[in-house]
Amino acid sequence: MKALIYTATEEVRYKETPSPLPAAGEVLIEVQAVGICGSDMHAYRGHDPRRVPPLILGHEAVGRALSGRNKGRHMLINPLITCGECADCRGGRSNLCPHRELIGMRRSGAFAEQVAIAERNLIPVPETMDPVHAALTEPAATAIHALRLAERIQYQPLNRTRALVIGGGSVGLLAALSLRDQGCTEIDLAEINPARRSAAEAAGVGTCFDPQAQRPADAAYELVIDAVGGAQTRAYACEVVRPGGLIVHIGLLDNGAGFDARRMTLQEVTFIGTYTYTHEDLVTSLEKLHNGALGSLDWIERRPLREGAQAFDDLLQGRCGAPKIVLCPLGK
Amino acid sequence: MKALIYTATEEVRYKETPSPLPAAGEVLIEVQAVGICGSDMHAYRGHDPRRVPPLILGHEAVGRALSGRNKGRHMLINPLITCGECADCRGGRSNLCPHRELIGMRRSGAFAEQVAIAERNLIPVPETMDPVHAALTEPAATAIHALRLAERIQYQPLNRTRALVIGGGSVGLLAALSLRDQGCTEIDLAEINPARRSAAEAAGVGTCFDPQAQRPADAAYELVIDAVGGAQTRAYACEVVRPGGLIVHIGLLDNGAGFDARRMTLQEVTFIGTYTYTHEDLVTSLEKLHNGALGSLDWIERRPLREGAQAFDDLLQGRCGAPKIVLCPLGK
Repeated sequence: MKALIYTATEEVRYKETPSPLPAAGEVLIEVQAVGICGSDMHAYRGHDPRRVPPLILGHEAVGRALSGRNKGRHMLINPLITCGECADCRGGRSNLCPHRELIGMRRSGAFAEQVAIAERNLIPVPETMDPVHAALTEPAATAIHALRLAERIQYQPLNRTRALVIGGGSVGLLAALSLRDQGCTEIDLAEINPARRSAAEAAGVGTCFDPQAQRPADAAYELVIDAVGGAQTRAYACEVVRPGGLIVHIGLLDNGAGFDARRMTLQEVTFIGTYTYTHEDLVTSLEKLHNGALGSLDWIERRPLREGAQAFDDLLQGRCGAPKIVLCPLGK
Repeated sequence: MKALIYTATEEVRYKETPSPLPAAGEVLIEVQAVGICGSDMHAYRGHDPRRVPPLILGHEAVGRALSGRNKGRHMLINPLITCGECADCRGGRSNLCPHRELIGMRRSGAFAEQVAIAERNLIPVPETMDPVHAALTEPAATAIHALRLAERIQYQPLNRTRALVIGGGSVGLLAALSLRDQGCTEIDLAEINPARRSAAEAAGVGTCFDPQAQRPADAAYELVIDAVGGAQTRAYACEVVRPGGLIVHIGLLDNGAGFDARRMTLQEVTFIGTYTYTHEDLVTSLEKLHNGALGSLDWIERRPLREGAQAFDDLLQGRCGAPKIVLCPLGK
C-alpha cells in the first residue's frame, strides 16, 4: 500500500510500504479521511520523543472495514487502545488507562491506505455522512471531553459562563463551537494567526481577537480553555481568568513556565489538565458533527494523501489558515 | 496598650502604642490568644509587599469583647473583612470578595492587647474552651475549606482517598487531622524538619517522612495537599500525584517554577488553588476543635506576647519544632 511515512525531522514521504497485518481481534480498515493533528506536527518537528521515525503518523481516521463483523461499513477509529480491565477503564475514565496506546505513536497510524485496529475500537459512521466531517470526531471529542470536565466542577452552568478559548486550531475552534452548542453566549477566541481568526469568525463562534495586539475590555473569564498549552498562553490564561474561575488546559505546545501559582492560590483558581476522550465522548462527538450541532464544518481543508508532504510543510511554515487539514488516501 | 509591632525586615518590637479606635459597627476586643501564621513570617522576612512596616501583624485571634452586644464574651475573630454585597459574598464564596481585607495586612492586626473588628466578624467561643485552642480555628478553617473544595471535585470520597500532605506546619498538620476526621485512612505527611515530623507523628496523623531522604514506595496519591507552596513542593506534588488525581495548593512560599503542565495535561491532573475560608468554614472548624475531632492539640506552643520577638526569631532560625506558636497578651 501507499503511506505517508515520517522519515526524519521535518520530512514525511509518500511511498510504498507493506500493508499492516491485523492481529487477533483486529480488522483492516481502508482509510478514507485522516486529519493532521497538532501532535503529528509536534512529532514532525522532532519534538516528540515518543514518536520515532520511520513511523506512519495519524490517528484522526475514518474508513471502510475490509474485514470483521462490520465489513463494508464506514467506521470511525477510536485511536486510543486501552486495556478495558483496569480501575480507570472500568470507572469511566479509560483515557487514563496506564496501558493505553495511541495509533501513530508507537504503532503505525492512519496516514496510509490501510490501518489495522481492534474491532472494539470502531464506531459506525452514518452512511450519509461525509467521511471528512467524520474525521473531525477525534478533535471534537477532545474538546467535548474537556468541556464535560469543566462543567462537572464549575460553579455555574456553561450557558451562564463567560468563556475564552485560546487558540483557533481545530480543538480550540471545536471547543468554542461546543460551548455555543451548550448555550454559552459569551465566547471570545484569542488567536494570533489572522487567517485562523477569519476562519473562526466565519464559523461564527463569537468575538475573535489577536491577544498580542488587543486585550479584552474586561478580562475576567469564568472559564479559559487553553488549546495551545505554551508558556505564553498559560501566563495569559492565569492573567485573564476571574477569581474563583477555571482554566482548562488541553494543549501540549511546551512545558515552559507561565503558570502563576501565586495568583491561582490567592484567587482560588482551578486548573484542569485534560487528555483525549473516552469512547463515549467519541460517540457523542460524532453525533454532534452529524446532526449539525457544531455548524457547517466548511472550514476543513481537504487534500489527497499523496500531497501530504506539502500539507505538513504548509502547516510548519504557517501558510495554512484552515484550522484542520484532512488527508484523503482515495483522493479528495 | 502594648503591641508587638513589625518595624523592619526581621524586626518586631513589643512596645506601647495607642489603642485602636473602633469605627462604626466595630467593637474592641481584648486579645487572649493569637497564632503566628506563615504569612506573618513571610512579612517579617520582608517578602510581602502588602504588609508594610510599621504594622501590627496577626490575624489568628481570640479575645473578650469589651463592647457591643457580645460584651464580656469570648469571641473568635473572623479576620477576613468582606463586603457582604457582591456576587461572591452572596454566592457562598465570600473569600473571593474583591473588596476583601485581612486584619494585620493593611490594617492593624491582633499581636496586641486590643484589636478593633466589626461585630459581624465575631463568632462565639464556648466558655469552657481554651482560647489558645480556639486561636487555631483560622488555620483549621484554611485546611477544612481546602478539603471541602477537594471533596467537591474528587472522583472518590475522602474516606477512600490515598492522600499526601506536604508540610507539617499548622495548616498541613490540620489538613492531615481533618482528613483523618473525615475517615481517610491512608494519609502520608512529607516534612523536612525532624522536629515537626515528630510533632506530627505524636499527633497521630499517619506516616511521616522526609521527602529529601525517602520516597514513598508507591507514589500515586489521589490527593496531594501542598501546604508549603514553593517551587520544590509543587514539582514534588506534580510528580507523586496519580493520573486523574488532584493537587490542592494552599501554601504561598514562592512563585517559582515547579509546575509540570505537561504531566498535568497528559495525566489529566487537576490543581486547585485555595484561599482562606468562609465564615461557615470558621464556625465548622471551631466546633471540630472544640469537640476533639482534630485531636488533643497539645502540639501548640504557648508564649507570652511580650516574648514575641524571640518567637519570630526562633521560627526564622528553624529552632521551633512546634507546628504553631500562639502568643498570649495576658501571659500564657
